[in-house]
Amino acid sequence: MFAPVYLDHNATTPIDPTVLSAMLPYLSGQFGNPSSRHEYGRAARRAVDEARSQVAAAVGAHASEVIFTAGGTEANNLFIKGAAAAYKPGVLAVSAIEHPCVLKPAEQLARQGWTLHKLPVDGDGRLLDDPYRAVLALKPKIVSVMLANNETGVVQDLAVLAAPAAQVGALVHTDAVQAFGKLPVDFRRLNAAGVRAMTVSAHKIGGPKGVAVLILDKRVELQPLLAGGGHERGLRSGTENVAAIVGFGVASQLAVSRQVAYAQRLLALRLTLEDGLRSLGAVLFSRAAERLPNTVYFAWPQIDGETLVGHLDRAGYAVASGAACSSSQPEPSHVLQAIGVAPELARGAIRVSLGEGNTAADVTGLLNALYATIDQLRHLPAMGQPSLATMH
Amino acid sequence: MFAPVYLDHNATTPIDPTVLSAMLPYLSGQFGNPSSRHEYGRAARRAVDEARSQVAAAVGAHASEVIFTAGGTEANNLFIKGAAAAYKPGVLAVSAIEHPCVLKPAEQLARQGWTLHKLPVDGDGRLLDDPYRAVLALKPKIVSVMLANNETGVVQDLAVLAAPAAQVGALVHTDAVQAFGKLPVDFRRLNAAGVRAMTVSAHKIGGPKGVAVLILDKRVELQPLLAGGGHERGLRSGTENVAAIVGFGVASQLAVSRQVAYAQRLLALRLTLEDGLRSLGAVLFSRAAERLPNTVYFAWPQIDGETLVGHLDRAGYAVASGAACSSSQPEPSHVLQAIGVAPELARGAIRVSLGEGNTAADVTGLLNALYATIDQLRHLPAMGQPSLATMH
Repeated sequence: MFAPVYLDHNATTPIDPTVLSAMLPYLSGQFGNPSSRHEYGRAARRAVDEARSQVAAAVGAHASEVIFTAGGTEANNLFIKGAAAAYKPGVLAVSAIEHPCVLKPAEQLARQGWTLHKLPVDGDGRLLDDPYRAVLALKPKIVSVMLANNETGVVQDLAVLAAPAAQVGALVHTDAVQAFGKLPVDFRRLNAAGVRAMTVSAHKIGGPKGVAVLILDKRVELQPLLAGGGHERGLRSGTENVAAIVGFGVASQLAVSRQVAYAQRLLALRLTLEDGLRSLGAVLFSRAAERLPNTVYFAWPQIDGETLVGHLDRAGYAVASGAACSSSQPEPSHVLQAIGVAPELARGAIRVSLGEGNTAADVTGLLNALYATIDQLRHLPAMGQPSLATMH
Repeated sequence: MFAPVYLDHNATTPIDPTVLSAMLPYLSGQFGNPSSRHEYGRAARRAVDEARSQVAAAVGAHASEVIFTAGGTEANNLFIKGAAAAYKPGVLAVSAIEHPCVLKPAEQLARQGWTLHKLPVDGDGRLLDDPYRAVLALKPKIVSVMLANNETGVVQDLAVLAAPAAQVGALVHTDAVQAFGKLPVDFRRLNAAGVRAMTVSAHKIGGPKGVAVLILDKRVELQPLLAGGGHERGLRSGTENVAAIVGFGVASQLAVSRQVAYAQRLLALRLTLEDGLRSLGAVLFSRAAERLPNTVYFAWPQIDGETLVGHLDRAGYAVASGAACSSSQPEPSHVLQAIGVAPELARGAIRVSLGEGNTAADVTGLLNALYATIDQLRHLPAMGQPSLATMH
């Protein structure tokens, strides 16, 4: 079977074989509902408890701070909407480069009486300090800033950002979905700096789709989005997805045990890739900022990103154009807009996100494929003049 | 390995081996994010599309009416809260015997200005007609009545109930989680009678945990609970749980193809069990009502249900006491309260829910174990007088 080289790990990752092995018993004989009081149920409950401890240990939290959800989108919505429901409407601040699953709930609140501030970033995608301080002076009740951006890979210094926000009484949350596994992520340290909640997801770190956690300081009161049987301390009802939770537990342990070596190895590959891209005349986004070791975001003027992704796919390389998480997005990336990239160039954006299985040969192969493709696409009509190539 | 006889299929079911086989490729090589535009992503999208068609066909809906969620609790919350958010507060009616994942969101709305009516049932658990008509006269905006109850197994005639509710302009929803697979469930027929939305879950029909659907008439506008990348027509954002969705597709097909024979076989076992229970002096709940073929709900006066479940578990039979879905419920079942069962008797409630793997020998074995246990428990101090046996 033809298996293209997968270079889109920020979109999702393959399940690690160790993780799948741990999950399989819970997809067959150990199928109990953790709420049942017989042996099938108790075995499922023990498995969920163990996974809760594993995830907690991996992110530097206590097991009682772990709320399992069905994904990062749910965890982010739970925080934003659940926290807002515990307050009267006030000021809400989120960075302009958040994932849509933070931005959209924030925009829903803005239609319900909240005053939403989207915190601007500089030309490399780092939060701008002066506008941030100005918004903090408005005493926001909720602040959410992601630890690392899914498109650019840019890392924000949350410990530094959280302290003044906490000082003005804001409930500070960070979406750490892209950071976890690639950087050290320690909720205890962030918590000491004022971060009260953090989102981490399984399928970005070699775990299964369908499970994530909101890590929540126990002093924070949230309204549940999903009400019912009272699971997860009443904060998230619904029968636990036992196999996925078990997989997340194991994946989180692996992610932490591998993180340092993983980051070093991927950074070396990334630097090679960036050298090659520069020699091919690509524009690299956010290159002056601290970034995830695995993420490169780039474009060529006058080459359409979608078209390039299609060509690379046929050449055997799976990469993303713009943000890969939204279902259909004809608009240029909101992240590149926030950075101030011109729409013409933003439409050319390609993201390579390296991962576990990638090798130096993959990077060389991708560069060769790009060399051939770029050359080919340069002989096609320029963008703006519709052609078969840009309309596919 | 000691494997107790599993008689708790209304709580959850083992994954059918055919279903697991269909899921496995999506837990290994076919790991793409359906939103990605390369071959990994397209393969995942095709799998989700196929499963959507399978589930739609199985429940008599159109693929465009299927909204995948992470479970029945989410689907029910999405309908109740999502529909309410599209209206100004008004009258909301749900049956008194709904699952907590309908009752609790309804109670949340009652705290936000809605007038909640809990529709009463008769002594067998069937919706009472006169109080229902009286509530309809108040022109409720939302009505939710389950197709079959998880505890008693009682089936409501939704087609008859929906028509007058739809006539007064109510948006009618039914939680068909327990009915699907055990009874014929046809959304097209229910829709013609006025039902606009229906919940069905995978892990009750031999599919995996972590996936369910809200079937939604396309004329109905809902506000999403989970906002973000715009998945599921913008009604439920979040990366699709591809493997679970694929499993649900296959499980729904199996459920429909097996339903008639399955119901016949389980009904025969249920009747044998009921004869035996009566001869052991048990009180059978809802016995005069039309019930699911697999569900028996019963008690003995002065024998504690929790204690009996523990004894049966040690004897190798996994059954439920009261409702098995809630995490911890010291209160007697709200369903038995609604039926008018005295708290002393309700605290003795035991539910046996038969399923795919059960045989006549399982039923005989359970009756023998009950015979031995009941006899033993009758020689213990009566309830109300604390003893080791009732406090374990």
